Amino acid sequence: MEFELPPSLGVYGNEKIAKDILSRIWGKRGVFTCTVANTRTSTIPGVSDAGDTPELTMFTPAADAEILVSGKVSCMSGIPINPGGIPTPATLTKAALDLSGMPFFIVNGGCEIVPYVPYFDMGGKCGEKITTGRSVENVKEEYEKGYMLGEMLARAYDFVIISESCAGGTTTALAVMMAMGVLRENLVSSSSPNNPKELKSRLVAEALAAAGIGIGDLKDDPLKAIECVGDPMLPANIGILCGAAKSVPVIVGGGTQLAAVMAGAAVMHPELIGNFMQGTTRWLMNDPNSSMPRIMDSISPDIPIVYVNVDYGDSPYEGLQAYEWGFIKEGVGCGGASVGAIAESAGRITCADLVDRVHEIYRGIMGL
Amino acid sequence: MEFELPPSLGVYGNEKIAKDILSRIWGKRGVFTCTVANTRTSTIPGVSDAGDTPELTMFTPAADAEILVSGKVSCMSGIPINPGGIPTPATLTKAALDLSGMPFFIVNGGCEIVPYVPYFDMGGKCGEKITTGRSVENVKEEYEKGYMLGEMLARAYDFVIISESCAGGTTTALAVMMAMGVLRENLVSSSSPNNPKELKSRLVAEALAAAGIGIGDLKDDPLKAIECVGDPMLPANIGILCGAAKSVPVIVGGGTQLAAVMAGAAVMHPELIGNFMQGTTRWLMNDPNSSMPRIMDSISPDIPIVYVNVDYGDSPYEGLQAYEWGFIKEGVGCGGASVGAIAESAGRITCADLVDRVHEIYRGIMGL
Repeated sequence: MEFELPPSLGVYGNEKIAKDILSRIWGKRGVFTCTVANTRTSTIPGVSDAGDTPELTMFTPAADAEILVSGKVSCMSGIPINPGGIPTPATLTKAALDLSGMPFFIVNGGCEIVPYVPYFDMGGKCGEKITTGRSVENVKEEYEKGYMLGEMLARAYDFVIISESCAGGTTTALAVMMAMGVLRENLVSSSSPNNPKELKSRLVAEALAAAGIGIGDLKDDPLKAIECVGDPMLPANIGILCGAAKSVPVIVGGGTQLAAVMAGAAVMHPELIGNFMQGTTRWLMNDPNSSMPRIMDSISPDIPIVYVNVDYGDSPYEGLQAYEWGFIKEGVGCGGASVGAIAESAGRITCADLVDRVHEIYRGIMGL
Repeated sequence: MEFELPPSLGVYGNEKIAKDILSRIWGKRGVFTCTVANTRTSTIPGVSDAGDTPELTMFTPAADAEILVSGKVSCMSGIPINPGGIPTPATLTKAALDLSGMPFFIVNGGCEIVPYVPYFDMGGKCGEKITTGRSVENVKEEYEKGYMLGEMLARAYDFVIISESCAGGTTTALAVMMAMGVLRENLVSSSSPNNPKELKSRLVAEALAAAGIGIGDLKDDPLKAIECVGDPMLPANIGILCGAAKSVPVIVGGGTQLAAVMAGAAVMHPELIGNFMQGTTRWLMNDPNSSMPRIMDSISPDIPIVYVNVDYGDSPYEGLQAYEWGFIKEGVGCGGASVGAIAESAGRITCADLVDRVHEIYRGIMGL
């Protein structure tokens, strides 16, 4: 009997693989991980809206981790917001984790501002601006430790979700995918509806020039591409994905940042294709200023996208409605956690359940 | 119907509580953690036999973590041995984890030599010699992060096992329990059958004097006792124990080192007594040079000891037979992991199974 998709989920790409993976994790026990990291690229004015100011973007990953683990922020005052007060997507991630009861762990890919919570250390350090052409240290160590962590998690759970909170990460992802030749034009997303595409393209061109890399030169060496023009979230997550997917299905939770992770894994371990899929949101899929589908077509026709149909259109809170206007769209694995929660509950958790819980969390952290 | 103890296990102390806890975890899903840490106390000649030389004792925790995770040692050549070539008890821990399929994680309490594996970072640092009277930094942070980790693990599993690899740790445990007044004489164990009791007692007296503490002065402040004369394994493990035991049963895997953890938890969260027990080995219980029972009587009559009856007397390998002559006895949670594996398998895993698997592991790492 063919697997029937609940109305809470949609699929793009290879539907057969998507349904095969979903059927294998339906009603099973998953684990969620969020890899937090900093890249100084996010402090270049105009690059990242994941924070109220360029400087505050450095605090966003740690604050997101603290919200997930302890429900409150210790590393800064307030919670991470985009300019204009739109709350971090960690609110949706937390809703999905709360409703499903799914265990979750924080991974430190390399933070300048470290969260005050227990996290898996990967030996990573804060990334430099990609315009240096020497962005990330300890890439091999991070990949290897990520791989071991993926194996350890796969030992304990039926499926694994990976994700990120790394401000500035769409720019670094674009640079890595250009170095690998997966992208030849700027198709990545932004947490702002006014995606600063020209600025990002210019920085990426500068970064590639500084590293002496032409488009596609590092087709076969994603770790080298990350070392030159990436961020420290990437090698840890490629490692976890590859270490886990050899034995259990993996949901790659995120948007265009995670595309660079999938592109890397597809080169390093092509035999794993068929055992992982992207988990994201309809907001990202509907973004007119990026194209997740075109990016994935370019990486592999056999890595499907499963997206959650959460809709904040009827929310009483403007900060949440803004998601419908193109703000935020993805991050902190909100899409992957939602897809995972729906799968773990065998479809019993619905989009309406998720939105109700987001409202409770939003009221709690905003003191409403 | 009363819970019936399998022949693989023995109980000391409050049998009712022991059987209650065992019945609640019987056939359930547990998770094993091992907290690795260094204290420079282990480099004082004569204190620790957990390493071939005083200097090598600093490598033992990291090497133990590497054996558990990857099955091979990266941080040094060879594997941790006592002088004379007796292999680390990680061999038995690994056997229990292998047979049960139980998930396990490494916690870094504060290492000078860090293992090349993924680990939970607790914000700890290598401990100083206790004779300084200022032994451990960041004690409160380690406790708080440990507490959060305990909560996170309890969310995901039906029971939690804590343990340690920290050379020199019986001396620091003695110092902490003297500062707390739990012990007034030296009852702690040693990995050598020739327990250097006089040296340890002298160092502890020096440490207490350096810190300006009389016996029992810090009865109500275990974290302060650890800061002065303890090691960085202790606050992380007290935290994990307290964070987890408020919702699921905890097995405290270890010998006299872990007694200091239980003494601390019993003061900070006395309401948790009844939801944790010690898990150890018959080798430790039979040690003529220490007295686990007397220590536990002093901490609380309601923290039972459950020990595994593993016997290496018929082993073809002298390095393992040495356990029967009083070497090693405990460490790396070998007793707790064994008790946990037996419980998780609802008694199907026997002592004979464990010994067979230890032989395989021993042959593998010794290249026999």
